[in-house]
Amino acid sequence: MRVEILTIGDELLLGFTIDTNAAHLARELATVGVEVARRGTVGDAAGEIAAAVREALDRTGAVITTGGLGPTADDLTKPAIAALFRRRMRLDGEYLEALRRRWRDRFGGEMPESNRQQAMIPEGATIVPNRHGSAPGIWLEDERARWVVMLPGVPRELRGMTGDELLPRLRERARSATEATELPVVRSLTLRTTGIGESKLADLLGDDLGRGFSGGTLAYLPAFEGTDLRLTVRGLPDGAAVARLEEAAARIRARLGAYVYGQDGGDLAAVVLDRCRARRLQVAAGESCTGGLFAARLTAISGSSDVVLGGVVAYANDVKERLLGVPAELIAAHGAVSEEVARAMASGARARLGADIGVGITGIAGPGGGSAEKPVGTVWTAMDLAGVVQARRAVYVGDREEIRQRAAQGALDMIRRALMD
Amino acid sequence: MRVEILTIGDELLLGFTIDTNAAHLARELATVGVEVARRGTVGDAAGEIAAAVREALDRTGAVITTGGLGPTADDLTKPAIAALFRRRMRLDGEYLEALRRRWRDRFGGEMPESNRQQAMIPEGATIVPNRHGSAPGIWLEDERARWVVMLPGVPRELRGMTGDELLPRLRERARSATEATELPVVRSLTLRTTGIGESKLADLLGDDLGRGFSGGTLAYLPAFEGTDLRLTVRGLPDGAAVARLEEAAARIRARLGAYVYGQDGGDLAAVVLDRCRARRLQVAAGESCTGGLFAARLTAISGSSDVVLGGVVAYANDVKERLLGVPAELIAAHGAVSEEVARAMASGARARLGADIGVGITGIAGPGGGSAEKPVGTVWTAMDLAGVVQARRAVYVGDREEIRQRAAQGALDMIRRALMD
Repeated sequence: MRVEILTIGDELLLGFTIDTNAAHLARELATVGVEVARRGTVGDAAGEIAAAVREALDRTGAVITTGGLGPTADDLTKPAIAALFRRRMRLDGEYLEALRRRWRDRFGGEMPESNRQQAMIPEGATIVPNRHGSAPGIWLEDERARWVVMLPGVPRELRGMTGDELLPRLRERARSATEATELPVVRSLTLRTTGIGESKLADLLGDDLGRGFSGGTLAYLPAFEGTDLRLTVRGLPDGAAVARLEEAAARIRARLGAYVYGQDGGDLAAVVLDRCRARRLQVAAGESCTGGLFAARLTAISGSSDVVLGGVVAYANDVKERLLGVPAELIAAHGAVSEEVARAMASGARARLGADIGVGITGIAGPGGGSAEKPVGTVWTAMDLAGVVQARRAVYVGDREEIRQRAAQGALDMIRRALMD
Repeated sequence: MRVEILTIGDELLLGFTIDTNAAHLARELATVGVEVARRGTVGDAAGEIAAAVREALDRTGAVITTGGLGPTADDLTKPAIAALFRRRMRLDGEYLEALRRRWRDRFGGEMPESNRQQAMIPEGATIVPNRHGSAPGIWLEDERARWVVMLPGVPRELRGMTGDELLPRLRERARSATEATELPVVRSLTLRTTGIGESKLADLLGDDLGRGFSGGTLAYLPAFEGTDLRLTVRGLPDGAAVARLEEAAARIRARLGAYVYGQDGGDLAAVVLDRCRARRLQVAAGESCTGGLFAARLTAISGSSDVVLGGVVAYANDVKERLLGVPAELIAAHGAVSEEVARAMASGARARLGADIGVGITGIAGPGGGSAEKPVGTVWTAMDLAGVVQARRAVYVGDREEIRQRAAQGALDMIRRALMD
């Protein structure tokens, strides 16, 4: 089954909100064998919404929309699509009562009048329950079995409803639409690499693997964490698709060696936590240019507290001295961005926090502060593992935020490589 | 002038990469009076790319594409669109030589053969120079003055080329296409609010302001930082548009008071830095559940080092005691997530780092660790300003990452409110 996704909102079209809903939907849909044929975005204008839905129905016959279901006047999705299906809007008394009850339970007092609009439903539509917010989803279908499902734009609500309601309904539909016991799916697998660029990867993979593999496609996805390799197989039954992907992934891993740090969603921080946990090692950080990002990456993962003791964000030189014990003379002699200071920060973090592994990161995130000798992007990273200290210099490209993110990733990778079998 | 944006790539369509390019382009285009009529995304399939470009040309006559210009085999944008325009591909010898030179200068050695494809150009096309990477942009126009410009998908390259090349060309085109000396523009203004929900905002704004304002539209953009209010005016000359927006913004500000923390791009962390700087106050943090995010928010802003001394990420209780001086008895008596411990962390951070303002954040980010008394999302935040300590409890909704982000934002807002005039 193929569908199109249409995200709705001036804020998306004008670029003031990044569209994360479409990506989430696409990933989830793939797990039940539903392929996204195309994605689109239109603004909060009834004519534009109706035109885009009509075109998508003509092309693909199945449309998922997000956004424009809220309580405010810029929310036009329901009436625009109802008009396209030639349906009137009616007030659903039962839903209105449920909305009022929900408001009293959560906030106390009376529901604002503006929320009443959420109980207006096109005639002949099915309400798709929303346990995560007040705007219900709406499912509309025409006499030719072409359908639109309208979901809210708030990411938390959309994610909840996708799991609760959308996927079970689509799985059921796909099953009844096909004779096969196994659904042909779009199945993907991602190999995550770091510390190597896109064209070098292509060269390492060579002509036989670098352009795809037997029965599947290969995409290169560069980002600050490194380049992901996405392997995709289409139209095979599930078991065969997985086998095809695993076989190709094994060949690519053999070619790339330690550049591959993970498969599928696995964040590098999670890999580092697992390796530390397996060896019962605890980590502490001394961060300057990353300003807390390294610790934030690790602590973003639930259950990190058995590995991460904490860290010191030593932005001021005085804090490097007081909390990490970096000698003032070292900073005076070599500068705060230097191998010597990175090493002292790593060892200081390890000693002061009582950890097994101490990490020190000091660099120039820019945009100012660079020099010919130490250009913007220069970062020294050091690791003290049980008293043995190593250090590495890198010059990261990108803007301030990218340099900070790449530096945090580089420090995580230093731990990973040190703890490889 | 109206254009459509088409972003190209399986990774976007499948949802493995979030599309940030379209948003960036839309924001930049608005500044030169170019309105985005619609956005779309297709996968790495020549037929899909050509169909989507053809439909957009029929609707709008002007298309900007991103992606699919890289050196690898999944990059099909150029040949697909060249075929649509009935143009052959030719090898541009001059560009190939420039590519080889660039590679030698940057990396040394010979350029990988896979990069050679980047010098293939459709006949009759204009090369749009790319100072930020190796893939050139391509501008193609047909006999009816309908055009497509193809830009790379790497965000850093796209952003650079938009400023260097795309905006000057479009500004010139828009100018020559209109008789007026002033271009009618799409002009927007954002008021940023925090600590108040979307429907409460609508109620405070009432019927006269909550649904838009004279000559303009109002959008509610909820996110973890709070809800942004986006005011948009279309089709007026620049000066009149700005006046209209400013007048409406002043009325909204009067209605919302301290809930508004900024206008347009202004991050709350930047507001906090400015207020601290004006009073010559320096900040230090003691973070538990936010794990470095609070410090990372402040240090993300260039020039923050005159205000931010640093902080302690005190994930383990032992670190709270050793580095922040939180008494062990306090943790034993009240638990790590308590008003008492938050206060001690704030005062400890202030004293140990020698700051004017100390912030303490301790909470339960989940998904585990909640209880009936302290559910997941419970966060105690405290601030010690020159010895005067205040504390606040909040229960944030969302997943682990949202709770951490909301907690960091709440702590920033506590400083902002304390330093209001």
